[in-house]
Amino acid sequence: MSPQIKKPQRCRARDLGINIGFYEPGPYNAITDVEGVRVGHTTIVRGSGSRGSKTIARTGVTAIVPASRDVFMESVMGGAFVLNGAGELAGLTQINEWGLIETPILLTNTLAVGACSEGVVQYMTERHSEIGNIHDVVIPVVGECDDSWLNEIIGRHVKPNHAIEAIEKAAPGPVAEGSVGGGTGMITCDFKAGIGTSSRRVRIFENTYTVGVLVMSNFGVMRDLRIDGKPIGRLIAPEFAETRKREKNYGSIIAVLATDAPLLSHQLQRLAKRMSLGVGRVGSMAAHGSGEIMLAFSTANRVPRESTKPLYSVETLKDIAIDPLYGAAIEATEEAILNSLFASDTMEGVAGHTAQALPIDRVRELLSRP
Amino acid sequence: MSPQIKKPQRCRARDLGINIGFYEPGPYNAITDVEGVRVGHTTIVRGSGSRGSKTIARTGVTAIVPASRDVFMESVMGGAFVLNGAGELAGLTQINEWGLIETPILLTNTLAVGACSEGVVQYMTERHSEIGNIHDVVIPVVGECDDSWLNEIIGRHVKPNHAIEAIEKAAPGPVAEGSVGGGTGMITCDFKAGIGTSSRRVRIFENTYTVGVLVMSNFGVMRDLRIDGKPIGRLIAPEFAETRKREKNYGSIIAVLATDAPLLSHQLQRLAKRMSLGVGRVGSMAAHGSGEIMLAFSTANRVPRESTKPLYSVETLKDIAIDPLYGAAIEATEEAILNSLFASDTMEGVAGHTAQALPIDRVRELLSRP
Amino acid sequence: MSPQIKKPQRCRARDLGINIGFYEPGPYNAITDVEGVRVGHTTIVRGSGSRGSKTIARTGVTAIVPASRDVFMESVMGGAFVLNGAGELAGLTQINEWGLIETPILLTNTLAVGACSEGVVQYMTERHSEIGNIHDVVIPVVGECDDSWLNEIIGRHVKPNHAIEAIEKAAPGPVAEGSVGGGTGMITCDFKAGIGTSSRRVRIFENTYTVGVLVMSNFGVMRDLRIDGKPIGRLIAPEFAETRKREKNYGSIIAVLATDAPLLSHQLQRLAKRMSLGVGRVGSMAAHGSGEIMLAFSTANRVPRESTKPLYSVETLKDIAIDPLYGAAIEATEEAILNSLFASDTMEGVAGHTAQALPIDRVRELLSRP
Amino acid sequence: MSPQIKKPQRCRARDLGINIGFYEPGPYNAITDVEGVRVGHTTIVRGSGSRGSKTIARTGVTAIVPASRDVFMESVMGGAFVLNGAGELAGLTQINEWGLIETPILLTNTLAVGACSEGVVQYMTERHSEIGNIHDVVIPVVGECDDSWLNEIIGRHVKPNHAIEAIEKAAPGPVAEGSVGGGTGMITCDFKAGIGTSSRRVRIFENTYTVGVLVMSNFGVMRDLRIDGKPIGRLIAPEFAETRKREKNYGSIIAVLATDAPLLSHQLQRLAKRMSLGVGRVGSMAAHGSGEIMLAFSTANRVPRESTKPLYSVETLKDIAIDPLYGAAIEATEEAILNSLFASDTMEGVAGHTAQALPIDRVRELLSRP
Repeated sequence: MSPQIKKPQRCRARDLGINIGFYEPGPYNAITDVEGVRVGHTTIVRGSGSRGSKTIARTGVTAIVPASRDVFMESVMGGAFVLNGAGELAGLTQINEWGLIETPILLTNTLAVGACSEGVVQYMTERHSEIGNIHDVVIPVVGECDDSWLNEIIGRHVKPNHAIEAIEKAAPGPVAEGSVGGGTGMITCDFKAGIGTSSRRVRIFENTYTVGVLVMSNFGVMRDLRIDGKPIGRLIAPEFAETRKREKNYGSIIAVLATDAPLLSHQLQRLAKRMSLGVGRVGSMAAHGSGEIMLAFSTANRVPRESTKPLYSVETLKDIAIDPLYGAAIEATEEAILNSLFASDTMEGVAGHTAQALPIDRVRELLSRP
Repeated sequence: MSPQIKKPQRCRARDLGINIGFYEPGPYNAITDVEGVRVGHTTIVRGSGSRGSKTIARTGVTAIVPASRDVFMESVMGGAFVLNGAGELAGLTQINEWGLIETPILLTNTLAVGACSEGVVQYMTERHSEIGNIHDVVIPVVGECDDSWLNEIIGRHVKPNHAIEAIEKAAPGPVAEGSVGGGTGMITCDFKAGIGTSSRRVRIFENTYTVGVLVMSNFGVMRDLRIDGKPIGRLIAPEFAETRKREKNYGSIIAVLATDAPLLSHQLQRLAKRMSLGVGRVGSMAAHGSGEIMLAFSTANRVPRESTKPLYSVETLKDIAIDPLYGAAIEATEEAILNSLFASDTMEGVAGHTAQALPIDRVRELLSRP
Repeated sequence: MSPQIKKPQRCRARDLGINIGFYEPGPYNAITDVEGVRVGHTTIVRGSGSRGSKTIARTGVTAIVPASRDVFMESVMGGAFVLNGAGELAGLTQINEWGLIETPILLTNTLAVGACSEGVVQYMTERHSEIGNIHDVVIPVVGECDDSWLNEIIGRHVKPNHAIEAIEKAAPGPVAEGSVGGGTGMITCDFKAGIGTSSRRVRIFENTYTVGVLVMSNFGVMRDLRIDGKPIGRLIAPEFAETRKREKNYGSIIAVLATDAPLLSHQLQRLAKRMSLGVGRVGSMAAHGSGEIMLAFSTANRVPRESTKPLYSVETLKDIAIDPLYGAAIEATEEAILNSLFASDTMEGVAGHTAQALPIDRVRELLSRP
Repeated sequence: MSPQIKKPQRCRARDLGINIGFYEPGPYNAITDVEGVRVGHTTIVRGSGSRGSKTIARTGVTAIVPASRDVFMESVMGGAFVLNGAGELAGLTQINEWGLIETPILLTNTLAVGACSEGVVQYMTERHSEIGNIHDVVIPVVGECDDSWLNEIIGRHVKPNHAIEAIEKAAPGPVAEGSVGGGTGMITCDFKAGIGTSSRRVRIFENTYTVGVLVMSNFGVMRDLRIDGKPIGRLIAPEFAETRKREKNYGSIIAVLATDAPLLSHQLQRLAKRMSLGVGRVGSMAAHGSGEIMLAFSTANRVPRESTKPLYSVETLKDIAIDPLYGAAIEATEEAILNSLFASDTMEGVAGHTAQALPIDRVRELLSRP
């Protein structure tokens, strides 16, 4: 018997009529609605039983490739924000210094950051002879959350080739959600969660821009869960009083935003900051042990690695016109987290720990009540 | 006829059964529940009519005195967070460098920061002969929001003595809310708002701590307003479609938190960050033009100005035990903003601008619906 | 007799053959070498004697107007860095949020920030009817250092009109240095200092850019003073062993950089950071009580306040080509500080305090020794 | 023939009479003068010839173990500062959030951060069954510089066991300097450098504290090199005009400071900031491509991982007494960098690249000249 029983009735928040906010999503309601952005997952699920064998895996890697063109040769502008720093987004220091992203972005478990970093280095050096040759190195971008309640994390199941596999599988179009990739063993507000995504289309004067968000969501306790503002967690918690849960809400979230709006890096830092308001709306208090890190990039402003010209031109939105993007970032982040919950089935992991699926029918019923 | 018609039926959010979050408020449900903290207001309301006379005032000053003892001689630990920096909290640089607050904290309108700074300097130098004498200066702490939609702000009605008056009137006990002090001309989500306050009592192991928040709230547009998660703004906005509103949601919020929990300055910075999640829950997107600045201090850890000993001991909460304070900070911030709305009557200001009071009966009705 | 005796032999560092670094200065070796940048001083020197009368003034205001065109209607890009935050640069929060400067930049004493803020508000509102009218306010940019060893600072000699006067007097061309404007009562490494300026011209590919720095310098103790690396302070300190000095090296420095190189705001933050290395080379340890704040702006990238278009184009230097500007920023900062020392005569201030002029002949002699 | 010819005459800066600053070093003039701090190196030197075989190694790992007791069970307080962020210090986000260090600190080459992270995870999980079991994970602290001019970096010679070996070899007492450990292939101001260390003893009132610094130094170009302020680089550069050098000064520095002074984390962040002034004094301009990252920790304030008490007491130095530590941090950083240069022999690396040793006799001669 598979430890991960896929039940067909999982859905997305929007399928229940939960329409977060004011803006419309793009065709896939996913980060891949931003042209050129691709997502791939490597999911590692094996074994069951008590701790000790180091063979029980509920983990994986998710890769976001920021642009269709080679981002190492043509970086995209980026910026990040740390809501709570009890976590790691390798590469963050350089992103905030340079305002550029020049590698795929990987999401995995806390103890697999090193392995994914190794994978990215191997992937990049095999494709770019500049690296280590003349004057170039590469600093991988790898975010993590702690999946050790379900995953026997010290088994270190993620290997560098899993990271490479996720990058190579990265594709445009619909994005698998829930217990896949880096989100395989993740939990949100005591329900099974993992990867979720959503997007918004925003009109600013004559142009329409897309904002897409993908989260690896792993934060919070049940009583704090809100769905479109409704205190579902508080209402439903008594029904799960006997359920065994993680004892510390030390979970985390890594949220990645892509947009085709032309923004400069300091504007992207500001956009990343707004994503944290979306995280807060679902119920995060950014607990002490929670690594809540947001990363945003724009596919519209690219900086060539090699150029004979010292000057380049960038187009940018005036800040005064930017507020719709802020709203879209908050909405898409909130909905991406909800999608990570609605997509995830109940999962049994190591040591008999079981993360319950969000009970969709019950949620539907509660949402229709006063 | 007074331009500010006090109607007796204004209330606090809690009077309507709106109990934000999980923790109980203190006896006053105010920042003054933290022992030693005092609040004073100077309210300036005069004139009416169109712009040009520079005599129409809807503004003022609110002073928060952080401790019963002289904070200049015995600083309290503090920390701040900028959610969006399109505003000013004079003194912020030193607070974040030293982790200390050594003056009263003043709140006023954007163009009155200088006058309040002058007032604080006068107040402090008259009481402290050390200043300017040996090796001491003082940097005032003054936060601002823009009340120019109701207030003829270029009239610069706030004078240094108004700041001194607010400090001198600072008292423990109940805190006047709504259109008073620095909040006199402020607006939130297109309804009249201003000053609001709330508190929470939190038990951590054997100790009970109080967290109190006071806000000068001036942000947002109607459609984004949420009351305890419920999208009241979206529901009510059609009824106010004809009402003239500020054209830009460039408003702001300054939120100040006091606690008697023993915290170090970097912990207070973290606490200040959580307040922004409370701001977000009411509906802020931290718009481009919004100065959303949070300041937190602890009355429990004091640093003497003069001491013959280079070492001192501080007690502090382990971070692992701190999460209830984070929850309390979010809850109290959310409720303080709501209180600023529930307390404020409709106000007519300059140029025929009128900020409507939040329609309490209608809100009560909407809250009881599915 | 004037308390400030101008002796004709004061000079600039370069007159002694002290050529800091590798790049050449511009024609004025001043911040005004950046086209459009203007500087004005209001110097306030009155009275002498012991403390108490509050009438003894050694202080003033310096104004830097960042561009020939109206910066309120057409902001320049800017960025700041705080090396040590025991000081104030009013407006810093907004500069780092928006990456824009839209007012003159004023420098004064610690207790005069409020008065200068008032002056800027008056100046701006008289010229810009947008302010307080539709949706605009203005946040003044005012930096300070503590001149209370020479200046009876609690006399609060600086009035709003002094700030306006400095702005109105702002002119291109040579800049008065030493005990003028905001630098009137300032001291550096126990010698009389104040305002200093310097510039560099840098060639990047086919373009030549100018970097100009102006400092209000007030930091350090004698033993740490270095001139072009040479430990002049250590060598000369024994000769001044009997001289009464400030007891705490709590002084500060505000350094402002202008450039015509096209840079984005995050690049200007980086440039501001480099200025601190120039401060360090003269001997700063960024002492606990020292407010060491750096501000940089580019006249080449301007953002119009009003525009019907949400998009605009900016040209920018690739970061990979930016290093010469970093070098120039360090060199010009170092030389500007030295110029503030070389330009300043001995000054007697309040309470019999006397700040000695840097002994130029002795310095020349020491520089020529092994 | 070994590619690394050890010549016996290498020395430390102090052996030449170069006594940086005012404070005295500790007995080893090393970071290990801070009691409990241990250092270990794994040096990997193999092969020679042109690129392509991926077998030519000039690299390694240095481990700093911050305390004699188990830092995972009893963290030390820490804080960091990024002078320029074109680099990586894995774990930085958590250090600045929590103000704690709970693992060894590793230094290696840019592409080996992942391998070292893997090594630390293995090392920690083998010793701490808490990790991955109940509610604990671990985030490794790994800093990097780019040694690819001498090291065939894409060969990825560093394996997880090299990291473990460096930790296990960590010992108190004298510290090997120069081309060892993580510094094996590093270059500073175009001369061979690598690991360097220095310390200072500082008396504050009745207590004596030790400040120790260890650097992995890899920054700068020759003309900028200063030795105790003297422009040795400028003087000596013509003699090396024909020498082939790195074409970009994209190098970096990771500097780690230990002290037994009782400091809080925000004070340690401030101390880390001062280290950058020491880096600047040797000649860094914090070039665009340079990762200049500083980390400081105090062995005096420890926070137990497990405790039944939510409160703990910490002793701390008043900030007003802290300046001598700032001076010591600057001095020890400057001297540690110089020691990395004086200790390093000429090294031939990949592709015929040769990094020249600093010519000690010539430097001695230049230092004695006017």
